[in-house]
Amino acid sequence: MNWYNTDTHAKDGDLAQLAGMGHKNFIIRLKAGTVFQSHKGIIPHDEMIGLPWGTQVLSHKGSPFYLLQPSFADLLIETPRTTQILYPKDIGFLMVNLGVMPGLHVIEAGTGSGALTCAFASIVGSTGKVTSYEAKPDFQNLARKNLERLDLLDRVELKLRNISEGFDETNADILFLDVPDPHNYIEYVRKALKPGGFFGCILPTTNQVSLVLIELKRNDFIFLEVCEIMLRYYKTEPARLRPVDRMVAHTGYLIFARPVIKPIVPFDELRPEEESENDL
Amino acid sequence: MNWYNTDTHAKDGDLAQLAGMGHKNFIIRLKAGTVFQSHKGIIPHDEMIGLPWGTQVLSHKGSPFYLLQPSFADLLIETPRTTQILYPKDIGFLMVNLGVMPGLHVIEAGTGSGALTCAFASIVGSTGKVTSYEAKPDFQNLARKNLERLDLLDRVELKLRNISEGFDETNADILFLDVPDPHNYIEYVRKALKPGGFFGCILPTTNQVSLVLIELKRNDFIFLEVCEIMLRYYKTEPARLRPVDRMVAHTGYLIFARPVIKPIVPFDELRPEEESENDL
Amino acid sequence: MNWYNTDTHAKDGDLAQLAGMGHKNFIIRLKAGTVFQSHKGIIPHDEMIGLPWGTQVLSHKGSPFYLLQPSFADLLIETPRTTQILYPKDIGFLMVNLGVMPGLHVIEAGTGSGALTCAFASIVGSTGKVTSYEAKPDFQNLARKNLERLDLLDRVELKLRNISEGFDETNADILFLDVPDPHNYIEYVRKALKPGGFFGCILPTTNQVSLVLIELKRNDFIFLEVCEIMLRYYKTEPARLRPVDRMVAHTGYLIFARPVIKPIVPFDELRPEEESENDL
Amino acid sequence: MNWYNTDTHAKDGDLAQLAGMGHKNFIIRLKAGTVFQSHKGIIPHDEMIGLPWGTQVLSHKGSPFYLLQPSFADLLIETPRTTQILYPKDIGFLMVNLGVMPGLHVIEAGTGSGALTCAFASIVGSTGKVTSYEAKPDFQNLARKNLERLDLLDRVELKLRNISEGFDETNADILFLDVPDPHNYIEYVRKALKPGGFFGCILPTTNQVSLVLIELKRNDFIFLEVCEIMLRYYKTEPARLRPVDRMVAHTGYLIFARPVIKPIVPFDELRPEEESENDL
Repeated sequence: MNWYNTDTHAKDGDLAQLAGMGHKNFIIRLKAGTVFQSHKGIIPHDEMIGLPWGTQVLSHKGSPFYLLQPSFADLLIETPRTTQILYPKDIGFLMVNLGVMPGLHVIEAGTGSGALTCAFASIVGSTGKVTSYEAKPDFQNLARKNLERLDLLDRVELKLRNISEGFDETNADILFLDVPDPHNYIEYVRKALKPGGFFGCILPTTNQVSLVLIELKRNDFIFLEVCEIMLRYYKTEPARLRPVDRMVAHTGYLIFARPVIKPIVPFDELRPEEESENDL
Repeated sequence: MNWYNTDTHAKDGDLAQLAGMGHKNFIIRLKAGTVFQSHKGIIPHDEMIGLPWGTQVLSHKGSPFYLLQPSFADLLIETPRTTQILYPKDIGFLMVNLGVMPGLHVIEAGTGSGALTCAFASIVGSTGKVTSYEAKPDFQNLARKNLERLDLLDRVELKLRNISEGFDETNADILFLDVPDPHNYIEYVRKALKPGGFFGCILPTTNQVSLVLIELKRNDFIFLEVCEIMLRYYKTEPARLRPVDRMVAHTGYLIFARPVIKPIVPFDELRPEEESENDL
Repeated sequence: MNWYNTDTHAKDGDLAQLAGMGHKNFIIRLKAGTVFQSHKGIIPHDEMIGLPWGTQVLSHKGSPFYLLQPSFADLLIETPRTTQILYPKDIGFLMVNLGVMPGLHVIEAGTGSGALTCAFASIVGSTGKVTSYEAKPDFQNLARKNLERLDLLDRVELKLRNISEGFDETNADILFLDVPDPHNYIEYVRKALKPGGFFGCILPTTNQVSLVLIELKRNDFIFLEVCEIMLRYYKTEPARLRPVDRMVAHTGYLIFARPVIKPIVPFDELRPEEESENDL
Repeated sequence: MNWYNTDTHAKDGDLAQLAGMGHKNFIIRLKAGTVFQSHKGIIPHDEMIGLPWGTQVLSHKGSPFYLLQPSFADLLIETPRTTQILYPKDIGFLMVNLGVMPGLHVIEAGTGSGALTCAFASIVGSTGKVTSYEAKPDFQNLARKNLERLDLLDRVELKLRNISEGFDETNADILFLDVPDPHNYIEYVRKALKPGGFFGCILPTTNQVSLVLIELKRNDFIFLEVCEIMLRYYKTEPARLRPVDRMVAHTGYLIFARPVIKPIVPFDELRPEEESENDL
């Protein structure tokens, strides 16, 4: 197990979330003898160690907090970062569409602040492996701290260089690019991924999407998919159920594809969405 | 490892996907001495065993197929089923928002055809556990077959009864309801989930959402979230990039909440979306 | 003609928009001898009268403004108001779905700040008529000012009372309710609208939508439609085309229906969306 | 008045819609002495002339139909056509964003089957004017028939030529392009539109949008807007309120801009959406 465990009670050394009113969250590591401090008051860790998760604790000023294990989504959102966030809606879909699972080998570039690295590492588990490339030392250091905080560093190899000369690895199961110019590296992706493996990237602009599609087609990738996910929250008042007033309009376009061995016979792929359109 | 492995070559006993033109997919178990048959021609398994994944193979009629390991998303979509499908977009978001990870214990009701059960079981891995309730023997049998096909049955307990008398388990990490009347079971959810655990359900109508919200508030759940995910695909022609013509308009409303121990002090929770709205 | 005219040059008495940098807009009535004042400097009206529309003018501080006729959408958005705004995306769809056209009679309740009243009045033209009910004198006064500003008052009758005793008119072509409890007035709508006319309302919550649907079915309305419109803007950088970061998530659910004379034979209506679904 | 009138009873010469079960609609011109025929049976027009609109009539086979005036949206959707449809959701937004109103002069290219021409002509009324260019005689003939059917031809000038040499008119209030390569004509648009007028176009692909934006910026257009509208219908069952299963994913990107006279001082326009994003 890593940062989350199946225990019912908080113990010394656990990662904990103190959820205060107004959704003010603090993620801390419980440590006997130390004290949690915020402008809403202090709480000695010793008062929390041993309590059942889900208990309400009060600061010395009387401010209520819930003692919880942090959620995966909260950790992803609250990962200290200097780069663009990847949203849980996209990360979840990535995990399923790339088929991330315990035991697999995932390559990623760039590491950024490591939020997605944490997600990959959590799912591949202790039997899997993540190799993550990053050119900027500051980003890598931040990512290392974020991985350490979640006890995930054992399954992650952080490499400090850009990918303009390709990847050292071959036969990875999954390769994900979160760089501004993925179209420049598709040939290298081809060499690092095992045939039939899973490639993905996320890009903010339509112009970048077009460039990547050209390279994917040129390099024997099939099952090309481009999509975007829109997530809309609702207000949780049962007698006045309605969407919230504003939402995120765009995070990025997700692209997926699978490399194959150069075919003998030309292969006219028909994408699922077109098939279903033909049915209309 | 289960149905997917990190090998680069197909071997006897592997689960394989034969991807033909027009996105005609066949998911098969490779078995020496047997023959794949479709209206596009036959291919002896012995011709495929030993090939690198991603190789193009031709049927005796000359129809091309790619020999691939099935993707997670394809397996979820193509799980034989008699019930409403859960889409990868929702499943991925569920996995992240519920914090499903290796080693955890997930309870689910109803099992249905087992697609979501397969997803939970794949992610919790061999160190985790899924308990799944279903009242209809036919559904349970289908789910068992689907789990067997993916070698996931070892970590799943299938229970044949409805949940009108609650769950046998306590202190589960995660509990997900895919039943038409989840509002009737929230008290039982409360007892089966460990405090601070993660509850989720999916519901097609707004009326059902309102009913569940009432019960969640009544039973000391916090961090209530209701949302929906819209997924839009694009045509993958780089010089004519545009969304497809039609899309799925609705699968269901996703609801998330976490049970806590009855608080001493009233807790006015402010949801994240409202906070950010105040900032506008 | 009303507030907009087909002239190419600004003249005394015209409604004008001064569009400054940072999308700071000022809507003014040009009047010889007066002076436009803002924190970006002053511009005498006499300097603007006689210029072609679309000319850039500079304040005495050198700040540039474009001299334009205000757009319909800008006027709707910038109508001084005390109530919830109706967005152009919804207003445009309303106009088409209700079939608003020159010469028709539209009834509306409540008037609110009169933005929708202005839209109805602009489209029905000088040969049409709008009757608008409002219970609050303050709202009605604001609406009157807004209508006066656009020279639309000649075709609008403003009534100061709520609609709990129904409408005075019969055989209106179109009736639109923008009140929180439209389900209480559907019987009255029935009497005020000519059979075969067009009814519409906009409501923020799903619970209200359900209540209205019940009453519409009870009162011999057919062609019931419920929909919502989502509008997403893009950044206008051609080399980096992408949606903006945030958008409006919800304005309201739009409901449309047409009253008919009580049928002799039961009529199982199949809504268009269901038909097309059957085709899938 | 044109195709719609404010009468309460059907009379000889009126345009009528016979709405049968299963949303089978027939749009006919009532004419004494003739007979309506469908596979659901016949109805003599004389039986319908004189009836109140909204009356249920039965065919000789007993099939029920409602006698209605056709709605604007139905007419737009059911306009006989050979080209891509423009949806009411887009048309309504166009009308408001372009500021179409009684008395204005609108230029359009291409005419296509004339659905949008009908919409423009209905709103500009008998005091306004629509000039519409089309290169294909077949399309123009179809459009002429569609306009005639709605008695709108008096205010429309149909021109049979493409716009590769520009437009004959100047100082139009509004100009809308529904052609595949609008970026080739922006200079001509500049000459035909009065400064401060309203330009719009609709385009299916992102690549086309980028091309148009480049030309608009090059030709002194301001207030550039790119947006898309998503319309989602709901099933109208009050106790099971939910969106329909499938929806239109894409019709086109809408682009709007206003030409101005070449400015003396550079003008850094900040679009509204960016302003509001800065507020976040």
